[in-house]
This record gives sequence, structure tokens and C-alpha cells, in this order.
Amino acid sequence: MEKEIIVSGVDKEMKIALEKYEEPKDIKRVLSGMRPTGKIHLGNYFGALKAWIELQDRAESFFFIADWHAITTSYHDTGELAENTVQMMADWLACGLDPEKSTLFVQSWIKEHAELHLLLSMITPVRWLERNPTYKEMMENLKDRELATYGFLGYPVLQTADIVLYNADTVPVGIDQIPHLELSREIARRFNRFFGELFVEPRPYLSKAPKLPGLDGRKMSKSYGNCIYLSDSEEEVNKKVMSMVTDPARVRKTDPGHPEVCSVYAYHKIFTPKERVAEIEEACRNGEIGCVQCKRELAKNLNAFLEPIRSKRAELLSNRKALMEVFKEGSERARKVAAATMERVREAVNFLRQP
Amino acid sequence: MEKEIIVSGVDKEMKIALEKYEEPKDIKRVLSGMRPTGKIHLGNYFGALKAWIELQDRAESFFFIADWHAITTSYHDTGELAENTVQMMADWLACGLDPEKSTLFVQSWIKEHAELHLLLSMITPVRWLERNPTYKEMMENLKDRELATYGFLGYPVLQTADIVLYNADTVPVGIDQIPHLELSREIARRFNRFFGELFVEPRPYLSKAPKLPGLDGRKMSKSYGNCIYLSDSEEEVNKKVMSMVTDPARVRKTDPGHPEVCSVYAYHKIFTPKERVAEIEEACRNGEIGCVQCKRELAKNLNAFLEPIRSKRAELLSNRKALMEVFKEGSERARKVAAATMERVREAVNFLRQP
Repeated sequence: MEKEIIVSGVDKEMKIALEKYEEPKDIKRVLSGMRPTGKIHLGNYFGALKAWIELQDRAESFFFIADWHAITTSYHDTGELAENTVQMMADWLACGLDPEKSTLFVQSWIKEHAELHLLLSMITPVRWLERNPTYKEMMENLKDRELATYGFLGYPVLQTADIVLYNADTVPVGIDQIPHLELSREIARRFNRFFGELFVEPRPYLSKAPKLPGLDGRKMSKSYGNCIYLSDSEEEVNKKVMSMVTDPARVRKTDPGHPEVCSVYAYHKIFTPKERVAEIEEACRNGEIGCVQCKRELAKNLNAFLEPIRSKRAELLSNRKALMEVFKEGSERARKVAAATMERVREAVNFLRQP
Repeated sequence: MEKEIIVSGVDKEMKIALEKYEEPKDIKRVLSGMRPTGKIHLGNYFGALKAWIELQDRAESFFFIADWHAITTSYHDTGELAENTVQMMADWLACGLDPEKSTLFVQSWIKEHAELHLLLSMITPVRWLERNPTYKEMMENLKDRELATYGFLGYPVLQTADIVLYNADTVPVGIDQIPHLELSREIARRFNRFFGELFVEPRPYLSKAPKLPGLDGRKMSKSYGNCIYLSDSEEEVNKKVMSMVTDPARVRKTDPGHPEVCSVYAYHKIFTPKERVAEIEEACRNGEIGCVQCKRELAKNLNAFLEPIRSKRAELLSNRKALMEVFKEGSERARKVAAATMERVREAVNFLRQP
């Protein structure tokens, strides 16, 4: 049986992009967003949030809860949108995003995103959007939803507006987002050609964080139901870790294991001290440590990692008003930047100025 | 030679729509817009403005200068956008749109249009837009421009946002706009299905004004260069009328004329007293009146019609600050309605409310 540890989604085109984009050296302004489609899981943390937390010490940083984007694919069911937004606020702050260092805001609280989206829609050829590989892929994968909407096709146009509104030069993205960012660069360039050099062409900042598989060995994803959430209780974590898939060839404890195909081992590499990881690897290969014992040890380490986040999270959620206030202040800061950009855009496009 | 007096653009589908939509009886709120692509000509006046001026006495009326829409097809060249917007303000007021009766505003001054457009984009299937006959037709006719943009495809989505933002039940439109309005009804219905009954499905109000051909007998259109503008001077009007095409079969004054194919006659029917029109018709058919004489008479009557508009227009433009103030006030009124709608929309969609 061929075991697929992670569906990485890396195709040839993306690999080329990866080689093309070195890590930006002179980062001035960073921007990225996350869709509030549910609580944050470890995949989100290691795939994005961890890099953001590092970047906020290196550059002026803007991070936003992409609630407009959340609707793009979930317009059928927005019942949890407001609550998911609050939960994301708590997740972010609990993990270490710092409102003193970063501008943290909610996308829909700033009308300029919609305005610039509308303007950019008018210069973006439909064909650029249709050939977007992520669009093609998602259309293929999500046949059960009526996803062929105008807004879904225009997802990258809104992303471009999000980025250039703050003239961010660097955008931390997952590798699957590279084609979108390429599109953003093209749209920014096209705008500049028509209306003057207003926008910086954003560069990707590729996360070098280790990939963390889901409980079943596939990519961790809410839709697969294979996630460990930052908010999971100690008991939930214990239970989830015990359910993780290991080396399927190993039936008895004394069978030699293959850590390279084991999700639990992949986790140990992150949550367990290096020396102990080496011991575990050897013991596994020699059939000297059982999966149950190995999992118990991981659960303990994982809970040690999650505990401070979990309690900070609960504390933040015990005062929702204060939590929202943090994002209100961030949104006010962001709005000033966005409004200034739109002022320049309106002048460049030659809209009549309101007296 | 077959003479085409007016390219009416009426196809089978539209005829069906025309039969389908009777004139609305219980008009509560009217909304319509006009793209500021240049000064208003007689075709615009009789095709739209005249109906608006009548409607403002019958219902609560919102009329807006559609500067966002102007960019959809002219993003290559927005150099005149601001000036065209001011010219349109003068045209509207000079013709009799009354800020005491109507809410007159500038689309781009109200950010909620862009916001609702973004939301509606997410529920509108791409196929609905692709099958829009006006889209197909314009794509066919305007091959020279790079028109296949995302925003051009989404033109009806923005139009829908414009309408439902004010919950207008009635939209005065030209017959060629019927398919767009059908789309707006469908989009409003779809929104209501997902998020609750927030929007009225708008009905068209079809202009029954006489069709006025351009100087060359074709539809009056800026792009054909065959227009008489409200701002044309007396001399310009005289010159333009003298250049109008008449019955091509009539070579000498004594040849019997065919008023039914003559543009000048079509104008007389509007600008000349009824009894005199009958006399002209008979004299033309009997070869008793020459085209030059007939045109001079028309030019005189046309100038009599245009003179008050022309001088009011000049007066308005002599104080641009006051002119813009009228639209600023109207925009503030409109914004209140738009903001209240977006408030309800945000709640229905379940966006987290900014504290």
C-alpha cells in the first residue's frame, strides 16, 4: 500500500515558481489574511501563523481576517461566520500575534477592499482568471457545490485588492497560493500601466515550516475531519493522537517500524526534543517501542505545546468586548492606510472628487 | 437602398420581455443611472431623461451618475471622467431633474455600491452572466477593445447592487436593458433565498418616448458621431440639422418625398406643432417643400427647444462649486439609504459587527 503522507498539491508549475522566488531580503511591509471558516488547527498554525509571528518582528505587518473570502465558497451557509471571526481573533492573539507589532484587522470592516476590488475587476481579463490553476482544480474537486460563481472566479481579484491596498511588498503564502500571487503581480502591473506606478508588485514569502499531516496522514484540513485544533482540550488531544495512523506494515510492537511513513513520527519531529526523537526513531525501527507508548509520549508533548495557547485563548474569549476592541483599533489603523491608497487611486483614475 | 432609420436592437427575446412587462402601476421607488461618457445628446434625453423628469413627480426617485460603470468599458482612457461627471450634473439639472424632488447622486461617492457588488458577486453564477445577450452582443461589436474583462462580464452584478441597495421597485430602462434587469431580478431572488427576503425584485419601466434618429439616420450614439448635444450652440445645431439625411430617393425639390424614411420628419414630429407637421408631411409628399427649407424650419424649432436648457446649463457651469454641492447633498441622502441596506445585509449574511 502506498501511503500518502501529505497531499502537497505541488505540481510542476508551482515547483518552477518556488525556484523563481527566493526569500525576499528587504521586506518592508508584509500582508496576509486567513479565512474564518472555523477554529485554527495545527496545519494552519505551522502553515501560516508561525511565519506571521516571526515576520511581525522583521517588518511592518498587516494581518486580516478574510471574512469576505470566507463567503466566496460558503455563501450557502454563513451561520457561523461571526462566531468564527471571533474565534480566529482569539486564536491569533493566543498564538502570539501582537497588536503592538502588527496591524490586525477584519477585512469587511474596511470598505476600501470592496472598492478597489471593483476597480481592479474592470482591468482584469476574464481569461487570466479562468486559467488560474487553483480555480480549475477547485472546480474539479468541489463538484457538489454550486461554486461556479462570479465571485469565486474573481477570488484572485479580491486578493489583489487586499494586497495592493496596503502596498505590501511581501506576502507570506503557502505554495499552492503562488499562482494567485502571480496573478496579483500581473494585475498590479496592468493597473500601473493604465494609471501610473501606484502599486508595488507583491512577492511571495514561502513558508519553510514543516508540513504537519492530519490524523489520517492526509493534509490536515477541516473538510477531511482530521484536524487537531488549538482549542482542543487535553482529553481531545489524547484521543485524537491515539487515533493517528502509523506505519500500516507494523502489526506487532516487535515488527520493525518505518518512521518515515508514520504521522506520529512526523509530529514527534516538531513537538519532541531532538535527542529523544532520535531515540524514538531507533526504537521504532528496532521494534522496541510500541505505537501506543509512542503516541502517549507525543500526546503529552503536544499538550505541553498547546496548553499555554489553550489557556490564553480561553482567557481572551472570556472578554469578547476587549478582544473585538483589539481588532477595532487595528482596523482603524488599517483603514487609514487603505483610505489613503484609495485617495491616490481615485485621483489616478480621475474620478470626480467629492467636495 | 434599404434605409435603416434606427437600429433599435429589438430582437425576439426582448419583444417577449416587452409584452411581459406592463407599466408598473404602484410605483413606490424609482432608480436609474447614466454613464458619464460625454455630454448628453437628444437621444439620451428622449430615451431616458425625459421619463425620469416625469417620474420624479410620481414616486420617490433616485438618479445617479454611474461613474463606476463608465470605467467598465473605458478603463483605457479615463482622462475625461471627472469633467464628464460635472457636465452630466449640469445636463441633468438644466433639463429639469429637481434635487427637491429626486435624490441625485454620484455612484462612486457611495462605497456601499462596491460592497454590495462584492457580496452579490459571490452568489451570482458565472453562467448567468455569460448568457446575457447584451454581453454577447457587445463582445461581438467591440472587437477592437480588450473588453473581455472580469468587470465587464459582471456589469449586471453591479447594476443589481445599484438597484437593490435602494430597494427600488421600478427601473426606467431602454428596451435593450431588459435582459440586464431580468438578471437583476434573478440575482435579487437568489439573495433572498439564501439570506432572507431583503430585496424587492425590480420591475422595468419602459420608455414610451419617440425614438430620435441620429444625423445619419442610425441610432444616435456618441460612437457614431451623429449626435445633437444639449450643449450644442445655435450655430452647431443649424449646421448639424443641415447635414441630416433625408429621403435618399428625393433628388429635386419637386420629387415626391417619403417622410416616413426621413430623419428630419422624425424630428419635426417632436419639435414642431402638430398641425404644422401635417402640413409639412403633405407638402413633402407633393414635392412642394424643399429639404433645405424643411431643415431650416426644424433647426429653428429645435433651437427654441434647446435654448432654455442651453442657457440654464451655462449658468449652472458658471458655479461648479454650487453644482457639485447639489450632488453632494443628494449623495448624503442616498448614502443613508444605502448604509441602512448594507446594515441589514451584513446582519443577514452574519458578518461580525464592528463594535
